[in-house]
Amino acid sequence: MTPTLARRLAAEAIGTAFLLVSVVGSGIMGERLAGGDVAITLLVNSVATGAALVAIILAFGEVSGAHLNPAVTMAAAWEGGLPWRDAPAYGAAQLVGAVTGVVLAHAMFGEPLVALGVQPRTGAALWLSEGLATFGLLAVIWGCVRARSSATAFAVGAYITGAYWFTSSTSFANPAVTVARALTDTFSGIRPTDVPVFVVCQFLGALGATLVFGWLVPSLPARAADVVQPHTGSVR
Amino acid sequence: MTPTLARRLAAEAIGTAFLLVSVVGSGIMGERLAGGDVAITLLVNSVATGAALVAIILAFGEVSGAHLNPAVTMAAAWEGGLPWRDAPAYGAAQLVGAVTGVVLAHAMFGEPLVALGVQPRTGAALWLSEGLATFGLLAVIWGCVRARSSATAFAVGAYITGAYWFTSSTSFANPAVTVARALTDTFSGIRPTDVPVFVVCQFLGALGATLVFGWLVPSLPARAADVVQPHTGSVR
Amino acid sequence: MTPTLARRLAAEAIGTAFLLVSVVGSGIMGERLAGGDVAITLLVNSVATGAALVAIILAFGEVSGAHLNPAVTMAAAWEGGLPWRDAPAYGAAQLVGAVTGVVLAHAMFGEPLVALGVQPRTGAALWLSEGLATFGLLAVIWGCVRARSSATAFAVGAYITGAYWFTSSTSFANPAVTVARALTDTFSGIRPTDVPVFVVCQFLGALGATLVFGWLVPSLPARAADVVQPHTGSVR
Amino acid sequence: MTPTLARRLAAEAIGTAFLLVSVVGSGIMGERLAGGDVAITLLVNSVATGAALVAIILAFGEVSGAHLNPAVTMAAAWEGGLPWRDAPAYGAAQLVGAVTGVVLAHAMFGEPLVALGVQPRTGAALWLSEGLATFGLLAVIWGCVRARSSATAFAVGAYITGAYWFTSSTSFANPAVTVARALTDTFSGIRPTDVPVFVVCQFLGALGATLVFGWLVPSLPARAADVVQPHTGSVR
Repeated sequence: MTPTLARRLAAEAIGTAFLLVSVVGSGIMGERLAGGDVAITLLVNSVATGAALVAIILAFGEVSGAHLNPAVTMAAAWEGGLPWRDAPAYGAAQLVGAVTGVVLAHAMFGEPLVALGVQPRTGAALWLSEGLATFGLLAVIWGCVRARSSATAFAVGAYITGAYWFTSSTSFANPAVTVARALTDTFSGIRPTDVPVFVVCQFLGALGATLVFGWLVPSLPARAADVVQPHTGSVR
Repeated sequence: MTPTLARRLAAEAIGTAFLLVSVVGSGIMGERLAGGDVAITLLVNSVATGAALVAIILAFGEVSGAHLNPAVTMAAAWEGGLPWRDAPAYGAAQLVGAVTGVVLAHAMFGEPLVALGVQPRTGAALWLSEGLATFGLLAVIWGCVRARSSATAFAVGAYITGAYWFTSSTSFANPAVTVARALTDTFSGIRPTDVPVFVVCQFLGALGATLVFGWLVPSLPARAADVVQPHTGSVR
Repeated sequence: MTPTLARRLAAEAIGTAFLLVSVVGSGIMGERLAGGDVAITLLVNSVATGAALVAIILAFGEVSGAHLNPAVTMAAAWEGGLPWRDAPAYGAAQLVGAVTGVVLAHAMFGEPLVALGVQPRTGAALWLSEGLATFGLLAVIWGCVRARSSATAFAVGAYITGAYWFTSSTSFANPAVTVARALTDTFSGIRPTDVPVFVVCQFLGALGATLVFGWLVPSLPARAADVVQPHTGSVR
Repeated sequence: MTPTLARRLAAEAIGTAFLLVSVVGSGIMGERLAGGDVAITLLVNSVATGAALVAIILAFGEVSGAHLNPAVTMAAAWEGGLPWRDAPAYGAAQLVGAVTGVVLAHAMFGEPLVALGVQPRTGAALWLSEGLATFGLLAVIWGCVRARSSATAFAVGAYITGAYWFTSSTSFANPAVTVARALTDTFSGIRPTDVPVFVVCQFLGALGATLVFGWLVPSLPARAADVVQPHTGSVR
């Protein structure tokens, strides 16, 4: 039996809040302790985010599918795993959760609760990075659907830890995360004007991976519900 | 068949001792080798603690549930997974184990066996951190109950590794750990006067997550025994 | 039902492209951020590659077996798990994917799309390293066949993270990866003239492990299909 | 059907050789790249060893049980999981493999093939460390027996990564490893005269954990075969 929409939205919001707490919080902690060593800061940021993702997806996957990401929700709806009419609510819950997570991270570290990002992140190289990063994220998710085990949580956590390093944009790969990170003036921040192109590239990457996997795995639509609907044994 | 209470208490005590050995010991080793580089010290501290947790929960989970944490025991009792009458004994065993672990860590590193902590850890930002950190820990545990696999051990280990970085308090998230860390004057120490508020925030966070998950997952009470009682295939 | 050869080749090409993106991309990012600290650069390079491998193998394993490596394909064909007639196509797809991955990594980081490697990597010590590294990789793969679970992906990722450090060659262990890394003049590059001997040592190491495991596990040929054919529940 | 003793001994020897390759090799690589930063050297040493252990145990577990450690073999025989008459052969295979691994590591890094260790490692604090480290290792192994999954490999790898840091001796925790490390004059070496007491403490720790778990889990002897005999689905 699928949990009620209210329960699923709450799970998406809380889960996405924790994701942003981990991204923004570990960025602040890393920056404070590393004394300007950007490599160490990004190392702890990437390890903390990947580790948190494993935990968050396992925690909320059985309730809402633990999308935590509008691009994942769009891809799921595209394949028929989620009714299109539920998608906007999912996206809104993710966005509310993401912003709340930034505020909580700031509160925990004694920063102003909200501040506009100033870090410029623009240009074709970074846009390609975001497209590729999100393509890869969805490839991992679609590729793991069949396994129906806890493997997805570990695969996504590992993927993001790696992708912080192998893309020049440090792999935001998530529209809700991108918008929320425009509200922090710390290590993980982004200049608000750079957000829209990032988001477009992320949706395009997600769509690309979904189309490719739709061809690679003809049975994908039949399995799509496993990605999204809880109570199937799939954690994502 | 559930193991006898004596066996379960022994497992809780030994497991919690190893947890403190890992927290305090790796803090000392990191501090000695990193020559004042706090980022590297916390990195090894967080990686060693998370890795140790994976191993400890897998090792003792089948005997006692591997709570290792009075806040987890309280939450389990709240949901009916553990008789309330067993909870104080669990807590006492965890506390005895935790203090023993600190003494063992000190002995291994040639430190005075017990010393009062001097590191101030106080203020609203840190109290919020402890509440959130423990909320998240219990969310992970309750969210993983259904999986009934070894996933919980990995989820908890990953969560704690991340939470060292994404909270400003470095996520004690455990009343027994907090009390015991007041007995070390090394990297992981805490000033004894700062312990009580930390502990209160931890219990509140655990209670909050338990109430939220009680609503998110209506079948939670029926499953609560899987968290606590051994012999169910659940490792936590 | 086995996916069509076209689908399997596409999976091999995309998967290997992502592998090279992770190797070359994280090397560039590490080099740029670490300011000449080679230990930190190799640390992030090894962690990012290992983490990416976990995700990539889980993502593409069910389609093509996720060999991503001509030495693995050769070993699989040797044991009868893949028709010899399919092996050249697998190898070609891996090579095309690998080169594409290098180009994508360069594009993401604003480097010239292709550049010949200049890093000398030659001598008996490194050749022994490549032979041993690939022997170990195939040992892990053959040893995990029976498990038929997602364990292979984690085992291979862990192995490569470790092998970056415990061999003097940093464990290329993959002929397609080796050829493609001759096309980058960044941290992970290799001088083209040093490629052929590396490749020979890799094939010899893979053959050695396959012969040893053929004796260690008499039932290996019967199980070889599990390594290569998708739809068996094995992820590799 | 249990593999022949010859096959099991070969698996123990090859597996232990790879273990020593990972310990000694990553120590040399770390020392060379980190330029005297001992914290970074131990970090890569601990991560590489733990990751390699995951892979090695998964690779050889189904053939021989992947003890790789005379203290594990002794504990298994004590509980009846391995005939006592096979134990000396296991120990000899482990020792031959361990020494071979040191020689291979030296060859890969252009070091003299054998050199006596000069690093003093002695005193009550380190002896306690070795006893506790091996107690914990066996607790993890015995505690994971019931799970019968690949969890043991991950638990042991995680445990050792952590134990490098939370013990003052960096957790040799393995008599064969200890003897072999007396044959290297690099980061992981040990002065030969310090070996005997280490080995005694390791056996005592292993015995202690076996006695404790024999009480904690009354059904342990019936399950002991799962630790040692292959073909049971247990990877260790």
